[in-house]
Amino acid sequence: MTDTPFLAVDLPVLQANIARAQTWADARGLRLRPHVKTHKCIEIGRLQVEAGASGITVATIGEAEVFADAGFNDLFIAYPLWPHPDARARLAALASRRRVLIGIDSLDAARGWSGVGARALVEVDSGHHRSGVRPADAGQLATDAAASGLDVVGIFTFPGHSYSPTGRLDAALDEQDALAEAASALRGAGVEPVIISGGSTPSLEGTGFGMTESRPGVYVFNDAQQWELGSCTPDRIALTCHATVVSHAGGRLVLDAGSKALGADRAPWASGFGRLLDHPDARLVILSEHHAVADLVGEALPPLGSTVRVVPHHACNAVNLADELAVFDSGRRVGTWAVAARGRNS
Amino acid sequence: MTDTPFLAVDLPVLQANIARAQTWADARGLRLRPHVKTHKCIEIGRLQVEAGASGITVATIGEAEVFADAGFNDLFIAYPLWPHPDARARLAALASRRRVLIGIDSLDAARGWSGVGARALVEVDSGHHRSGVRPADAGQLATDAAASGLDVVGIFTFPGHSYSPTGRLDAALDEQDALAEAASALRGAGVEPVIISGGSTPSLEGTGFGMTESRPGVYVFNDAQQWELGSCTPDRIALTCHATVVSHAGGRLVLDAGSKALGADRAPWASGFGRLLDHPDARLVILSEHHAVADLVGEALPPLGSTVRVVPHHACNAVNLADELAVFDSGRRVGTWAVAARGRNS
Repeated sequence: MTDTPFLAVDLPVLQANIARAQTWADARGLRLRPHVKTHKCIEIGRLQVEAGASGITVATIGEAEVFADAGFNDLFIAYPLWPHPDARARLAALASRRRVLIGIDSLDAARGWSGVGARALVEVDSGHHRSGVRPADAGQLATDAAASGLDVVGIFTFPGHSYSPTGRLDAALDEQDALAEAASALRGAGVEPVIISGGSTPSLEGTGFGMTESRPGVYVFNDAQQWELGSCTPDRIALTCHATVVSHAGGRLVLDAGSKALGADRAPWASGFGRLLDHPDARLVILSEHHAVADLVGEALPPLGSTVRVVPHHACNAVNLADELAVFDSGRRVGTWAVAARGRNS
Repeated sequence: MTDTPFLAVDLPVLQANIARAQTWADARGLRLRPHVKTHKCIEIGRLQVEAGASGITVATIGEAEVFADAGFNDLFIAYPLWPHPDARARLAALASRRRVLIGIDSLDAARGWSGVGARALVEVDSGHHRSGVRPADAGQLATDAAASGLDVVGIFTFPGHSYSPTGRLDAALDEQDALAEAASALRGAGVEPVIISGGSTPSLEGTGFGMTESRPGVYVFNDAQQWELGSCTPDRIALTCHATVVSHAGGRLVLDAGSKALGADRAPWASGFGRLLDHPDARLVILSEHHAVADLVGEALPPLGSTVRVVPHHACNAVNLADELAVFDSGRRVGTWAVAARGRNS
């Protein structure tokens, strides 16, 4: 390969990640509803469903349309969608051919979605403080939304504060408490929560009680963030960016993969802008649009022109930059998968 | 418009930004060679050339190919490209039909590019410490590269350490010193630096002495980063992301534009993950893939379902996520421009 940078999937590692999460869910009697925003690939979604996933999670109507067109059913758009007229028309078309769930966190939105043919889950804030209602308020919204004609069938939360090196298991406990309180609020208001949905990759091992389904996304690939959070080991990282060493300026490794190939986000607690899979002590100390600079802390530098494997900080944002993923098995390229839902932000 | 989030260009502001930079360069007797990685749009490149730009700057061979196909000439790939066989074949094809400049910072790369038909500039590190040789070493590399058969015609630097609220004018001075030292080193080694190229948007107002050309990129749009650096005022911001208010959770504004529409990078000194153009006191306190949460610090929240204009932190990474830009004039949509070089990372 010379057309670096490009994203590569290690197929056996990917398959092991998929199997492991499914086994985890099965052992707890949970449905696994993987969030496909991480990979946006039809082929990977199919591997997840073949392994036992019951439905998928998406972030936008556009992602749902792409996966529906490929034959997927039981699509949860885990987002407080706003019922613009165009969005309503698209969702109605989708719900006429697929089983569709949406998120709501306001009565205004619930009223706007009434009659569109989708069922709804009330979003609950379990401590991430992004969107969602307080657990105690979930019952009121559920009954009001139901009274407005929406088919409310449960609750969901995203414990996003699990993205913390010291807080990921505490976030799992917060999630459990919030879902229990919200489920009780719904029952008290006369709405049975048939679906109680939670999950994030970092909180996965501490969660599962009181839920009916889990929606992890990143687990399928893992990334530098999960590695540093301790929610994966490097042998479970299935996505890397192959990059060429273009310079040894300043005694460091300058690679041709920058933020336009790797994604640009970096958690405040991260040790760098990503990691090198084969040089675990190295750190990416600079990330520009087309350069990553790695400090190899004393290790000999790989030669100019050689290829190294960069682990993106956040797999979801890296994949969203690529039109396709190169698929490898035991070091040999065995295929190419289109990132079918890339850029489908609405 | 209901298909939020989408990127929008304010055409009169864009045109004023282009004219202002050209006037700045003309007044100093400099060639302006805008970096088109910022916008990746043929139409914007044409506006820059019509205003007086002499050539363009790109980051990759792929970007150069897209602009060459559209008729642009005098393309500088301001990057220490590595001469893989495929890259050599592509560059040779490009150089056979267009005037092409490339960057080098090692003799290994210079040898590999010899005979390909492109001229070269030696990259000098002026304090950003990313790639490039020390100014004093530029003469040696220039003569060695010339001896290997490469047509070395000058030097270039990127004073990227200008991205600092307190350091942008110091970086301009560093750039001036480094280019002067490197130019002298080249002359001492018998290579005349016909092209002395520098420039970044934050350092622009403090720079220009001892250079023959400048390569700013972001100035064409500006962004939240430039606003906070003090290198633009908000009335000079030509690129925003139109986003819908989807929730008022927690008394804050939750928008449907996340890192997959805005880009995910954030400088350590930035006050948030972007700004709201019409609410200058607001701050984006959370940025997820499909949510931005804004704290409006006491201001009344725009209603659910309304549209707000988000200023991305870094325009270049935002544009690289979009397939097209919506063009507005006085609030009316007047066109659509394709992001023709989106994703051309190699």
